Amino acid sequence: MEKLVIALGGNALQSGSGPATAEAQLEVVKSTCDFIAQISKEGYELAIVHGNGPQVGRILLASETAKDVTPAMPFDVCGAMSQGYIGYHLQQSLRYSLKKKGLDIPVVTVATQVVVDENDPGFQNPTKPIGAFYSEEEARELEAKSGYVMKEDAGRGFRRVVASPIPKEIVELDSVKKLWDTTIVITCGGGGIPVIKRDDGSLEGTAAVIDKDFAAELLAESIGADMLVILTEVEKVAINFNKPDQKNLSKITCAECERYIGENQFAPGSMLPKVQAAMKFVKANPTKKAVISSLGKAVDAIAGKTGTEIVFE
Amino acid sequence: MEKLVIALGGNALQSGSGPATAEAQLEVVKSTCDFIAQISKEGYELAIVHGNGPQVGRILLASETAKDVTPAMPFDVCGAMSQGYIGYHLQQSLRYSLKKKGLDIPVVTVATQVVVDENDPGFQNPTKPIGAFYSEEEARELEAKSGYVMKEDAGRGFRRVVASPIPKEIVELDSVKKLWDTTIVITCGGGGIPVIKRDDGSLEGTAAVIDKDFAAELLAESIGADMLVILTEVEKVAINFNKPDQKNLSKITCAECERYIGENQFAPGSMLPKVQAAMKFVKANPTKKAVISSLGKAVDAIAGKTGTEIVFE
Repeated sequence: MEKLVIALGGNALQSGSGPATAEAQLEVVKSTCDFIAQISKEGYELAIVHGNGPQVGRILLASETAKDVTPAMPFDVCGAMSQGYIGYHLQQSLRYSLKKKGLDIPVVTVATQVVVDENDPGFQNPTKPIGAFYSEEEARELEAKSGYVMKEDAGRGFRRVVASPIPKEIVELDSVKKLWDTTIVITCGGGGIPVIKRDDGSLEGTAAVIDKDFAAELLAESIGADMLVILTEVEKVAINFNKPDQKNLSKITCAECERYIGENQFAPGSMLPKVQAAMKFVKANPTKKAVISSLGKAVDAIAGKTGTEIVFE
Repeated sequence: MEKLVIALGGNALQSGSGPATAEAQLEVVKSTCDFIAQISKEGYELAIVHGNGPQVGRILLASETAKDVTPAMPFDVCGAMSQGYIGYHLQQSLRYSLKKKGLDIPVVTVATQVVVDENDPGFQNPTKPIGAFYSEEEARELEAKSGYVMKEDAGRGFRRVVASPIPKEIVELDSVKKLWDTTIVITCGGGGIPVIKRDDGSLEGTAAVIDKDFAAELLAESIGADMLVILTEVEKVAINFNKPDQKNLSKITCAECERYIGENQFAPGSMLPKVQAAMKFVKANPTKKAVISSLGKAVDAIAGKTGTEIVFE
C-alpha cells in the first residue's frame, strides 16, 4: 500500500473569519477530516503533519496575558500544548469521518520533538513573530529582562521574534514507524517541538518555529514515504501568481523550481517553503514525487489528475 | 517480560513549594524519570498514566483570565493541552534517564480520549472544582450564561465544579497495544480527555475530570498488564493514618479493603480511589496483583519487598 505524508496548512484547521474559538476550529477540522478520510478510502497509508501558527499564538497570548495570575509557559511547552489541542480535534474527527465511510482505522496523535541545530543560522537572525504585541518601551524591557529578541511588526507594535531553524531529526520516529502501517499517525504538529541536543545526549526545548512543510518532508524522507503531499489553499502552484499572466503548473522539475525561485515567483513563508520541501523530498528520492494542491482536490492530485507534481527531472 | 501500568501522582510532576513554572516542573519530572528508568532497567515493560490536576487548572486559569484577549478554551481542550505539556516533559526526560542507564528505549506520549457514560451519576452531582475563583455574583452570572455548575469552595469563593465519571473505554487503546512491547507509552494523561459517545458513533468532548487511578486501572485491565502500580507520596497504605495507632499495611485482600473502606479509613480523592482502582484490577484479574507505594520505593515495591500489595484473596 502506498504511504503518504500529508502536510496540512492553516486553512485546514480554522476559518479565516469569525472568532477563533476551539468550537469553531473543531467545525473546520471535521470538514477537513472528511477529505482526509476519502484519501484513506482510496487505499493509502497516511501520516499527517499540521501547522499550528494561529493556535500556538493564542496559547502564548493567553499565557502572557495571565502571567500575573499564573506563570507564563515557555514557547516549547506552548508548542507541546498545541500538539495536544489540534491533535485531539483531528484524531476525534478523523476517526468518525473514517467510520462514516465504513473504515475502522485507528487515528492517534504522537507528541513529537524535532531536533534542530543550535548553530542553525536562524538563531543568529530570528525572523518569526510570535505572541502578543508590545509597546516599544515594554519591548525594550523584555529584551533586557528575558533576553527576547523584539522587532517592530508592520506598524502594529513590537513582537517577539524567534528562529525558524531547519529540522534535523524526529525524536519519536520509531513510534511513528511502528504505528503507521495500521494507524493514521498525527505527528510533528506545528513542525514539531523544537529541541536542541546537548553533548551529553539530553534534549532541551528551545524557542523556535520549525516550518511544518520542512518537518513533513523530513518525516517523509525518514520514514520512506512514497509521496509527500502538501495541501494548501490553491489547487496548483502558479507563476506570475495573481497577475494577468498567471500560469498554473501541473508538473515541475527541480531545475524548473530553482529557476522560478531565482525569479522570486514563490512568496517566502507561503508557497516558497512548500516548493523547497517538495524539491528536497524528490532530490532525496529521485524516483518518487511530491504533490502540492488543495484539500478539496487532494484525492485527484494524489492520483495525478490535478495539483502540481514536483519531480526530480 | 512482565508488563506494568504505572500511575504517577501529582508529587511526581511538581514540587509542593515555589512558583509553579514549567521550568520548576521539568526539574521534578527529571528526578521522577530517574526512578522510572530504574524500573525499566529491572526488566519490565511500562505504560505510564499521570495526573494533571494542577497543570490543567493553570491552563484553564490562564485561558479564563485572558478571555477578553483571546477566546477561552473548553475544558476538554485544556485537558488535551495538558497531555501535550506533561507528556512532552516526561518523554524528553525519561528518554534521557534511560540513556544514562545504557538503555535505548523509545518513549512516546499518545493523546488519549477516554469514553465516559453521559448517564454517569457524576454528571447529576458534579463535585470536582476546576479553574479560577469567582465572587457569588460572577458565579451566578456564569451559571446563567454558560450553564456551569458553581459551588462555594471552602470559604475561598465560588468555583466551577465538574463531574468525575467512571472511565469506560480508552479510544486509542489499539495504538498503545501496538507500541508498548517496544516503547514506553505515556497515555491517559490526567485520566484521559473525557468524551461521550453519541448514537451515531461520533465522540464529543465533555467537561469532566476522570480519576487517573481509575483510568490507569482501565488501561491495565484492557491491555492485559501483569501488575497495576500506583505511585503516591507514601511507602505503604495505612489504616488509622496520621494517628498514634497508624498501622502500615503490607498486603491486603479485597475483603479487607472493603472492611477498611466501610470504616472510612481511606480519604476520598486521595487514598480511597487508589485502593478502589487496585481492588477493581485484582477483581478482574484474581491471579494478578496491584501495588501502592511511593516513587522512591517503587522498584522494591514491585519486587514485593515493600509497599502495599492488593490481592484478590
